[in-house]
Amino acid sequence: MKGVKTIGIVGGGQLGRMLTLAAAPLGFRVIVVNPEANGPAAQVGADEIVASLQDKKALEELAKRSDFITVEIEHFDTAALDKIAKRGTPVNPSPLAIQAIQNKFHQKQLLEHNGIQVAEFADFGSVGAAKEHLKQWGGEMYIKSKFNAYDGRGNFYVTTPKGVDSLADANDIQALYLEKKVSYAKELSVMVAKDLQGNVKSYPATETIHKRSICIETITPAEIPKHIHKKATELAQKTVACFEGAGVFGVEMFLSGLDTLLVNEVAPRVHNSGHFTMNACVTSQFEQHIRATAGLPLGDTSLTSPCAVMVNILGEQNGPTHLKGLNKALAIPGVSVHIYGKSPTKVDRKMGHINAIGSTIKQARDRARKARKLIDI
Amino acid sequence: MKGVKTIGIVGGGQLGRMLTLAAAPLGFRVIVVNPEANGPAAQVGADEIVASLQDKKALEELAKRSDFITVEIEHFDTAALDKIAKRGTPVNPSPLAIQAIQNKFHQKQLLEHNGIQVAEFADFGSVGAAKEHLKQWGGEMYIKSKFNAYDGRGNFYVTTPKGVDSLADANDIQALYLEKKVSYAKELSVMVAKDLQGNVKSYPATETIHKRSICIETITPAEIPKHIHKKATELAQKTVACFEGAGVFGVEMFLSGLDTLLVNEVAPRVHNSGHFTMNACVTSQFEQHIRATAGLPLGDTSLTSPCAVMVNILGEQNGPTHLKGLNKALAIPGVSVHIYGKSPTKVDRKMGHINAIGSTIKQARDRARKARKLIDI
Repeated sequence: MKGVKTIGIVGGGQLGRMLTLAAAPLGFRVIVVNPEANGPAAQVGADEIVASLQDKKALEELAKRSDFITVEIEHFDTAALDKIAKRGTPVNPSPLAIQAIQNKFHQKQLLEHNGIQVAEFADFGSVGAAKEHLKQWGGEMYIKSKFNAYDGRGNFYVTTPKGVDSLADANDIQALYLEKKVSYAKELSVMVAKDLQGNVKSYPATETIHKRSICIETITPAEIPKHIHKKATELAQKTVACFEGAGVFGVEMFLSGLDTLLVNEVAPRVHNSGHFTMNACVTSQFEQHIRATAGLPLGDTSLTSPCAVMVNILGEQNGPTHLKGLNKALAIPGVSVHIYGKSPTKVDRKMGHINAIGSTIKQARDRARKARKLIDI
Repeated sequence: MKGVKTIGIVGGGQLGRMLTLAAAPLGFRVIVVNPEANGPAAQVGADEIVASLQDKKALEELAKRSDFITVEIEHFDTAALDKIAKRGTPVNPSPLAIQAIQNKFHQKQLLEHNGIQVAEFADFGSVGAAKEHLKQWGGEMYIKSKFNAYDGRGNFYVTTPKGVDSLADANDIQALYLEKKVSYAKELSVMVAKDLQGNVKSYPATETIHKRSICIETITPAEIPKHIHKKATELAQKTVACFEGAGVFGVEMFLSGLDTLLVNEVAPRVHNSGHFTMNACVTSQFEQHIRATAGLPLGDTSLTSPCAVMVNILGEQNGPTHLKGLNKALAIPGVSVHIYGKSPTKVDRKMGHINAIGSTIKQARDRARKARKLIDI
């Protein structure tokens, strides 16, 4: 079939799965690179190259078998993908943008350089310098890994000079940086889509709730004043403009005090805080990302329901996966369940999520939380 | 992974594809029987048994590899599936219900027997009797095939005794029946979902527009007075109650005169006239059918947009499939495109469809028709 293009995706986990499901109606084929065989994306029809995301040969094979490439994760060999892009396979967003994001310290530098307010931060430097920052910042700070940090992994909350010592002992300090602890009222996220021409569309700002640094719930629209909503949207768009290439980006930020917004982190891809779009927006973030990276025009980002709450289905034990309680959960009005096909279950592993729509946030939240309690996986 | 069930689907075409896409988020695996390899459902991750739908062994293999079975088409060996159901594999809707629907003459008899108004009809009987009916019915009638008739195939419009002769010459008259031509204002369709406990939920009534007896467009909600909408819904539910088993059913009817509703045909499955639900309802007909046949509770059937128009993408020539114009079509607000992955293109082959939402029917229709014109496949 002529005109049918194959999308190569770096990563074939749950985000790759939902991208694959969204690509099919638009007539695209999908191929992924995934470290484990028969991953979430392969289960829904994606071809799969089983290999590490650091495997240059696998990325080369992906390029050979794809018309264009995108990513579902930022932890991979960006230099290899940059070579591929320079040789002519379109890659979106730009591998260099992903590289800048991959190193969280560089990401913060880049944001600051572009006039975007972030929490105070510094390179670890030396143990002495780190202790000095701890003092300066009022006796509490985060020591964070520059690389491979997500869902709270690689973030350490430190309140004593001894804490600095023990982290320096256990880690390569070159790979660490420091961040002042920000006191904030809410954590927000804005999903922004950018097409190949640079046109952007934003989804409504979402409030994200974290537990043990993992997103457990999102509330849309975020319960914030209208002018903050506008400010957050503008900030997210300004942030995304710092990174080259098309796609959906997730911009996480803190609302500190009454109206200070600090960008915390950027995801150069679809994001957990955008899952509500699957059941509550005209165009889901997944279809939007396919549109954006395929050179198609962006879809409507409006809500089709007044409110939407997403609750993650995180694993609660280690062991074989069994799916129970779907029957009761789906009996709740407005509830949609999205299972990722992962096995086995591990503590805090993202096994699926629940979207609930409602006429009020309370209604949507009650529905989503009730459904979550009923599901055992 | 325990608790993950495999759904067996008889047929792996576009309806099987959209069922497969809807089954994944609920954690189901899908296996289909399909006459051609790598059909639309297999392309999105369904396992596929390549065989005729009349192949008893293939249906047996489907049963062996499935936890429960449903269908995307009614033209298959229903007796074989009935045996499978009697041996204990759940099949929904009931194979005997599908058998009754398969023979359009029996379907009409069964509806009439249950007090449901249909157009006047009769068995072909003899050439003499058929000519007598033609006279009685005012000189125009349909001669229809009892079996394998869909999208207008097997329906003949007859206005002369000579026409009766030539059809009798060319066909086995045992396989034909007669139907009075009904003059009608609109053709309507109501999708009704029935769960394993017999609970039903209906989608808003849709107006269907046909060309050469193939559905080309649907308009939702149908532009009919409120009391007719109510009457159509009640009639559809009464109709579905005649057929045993769970699933989504499509009930096609004529609105004749001001308020007479005649049931034309029942589909024991998801249906072209329910495609609007994918982008305009809380629960799509595909998710609904999975829920219903899997023993899960039915989802909300409400519209999330005021109006929705679906336009089929029918092939316009015979030849290799090429997908063009997606870019321009998707630039129209509220437009979603669903491509089925079929190849080659054939005249009138269902290659995909377009859903457009809008605040008025005119807006949705203009969007959908404009998008259709831009797509070349």
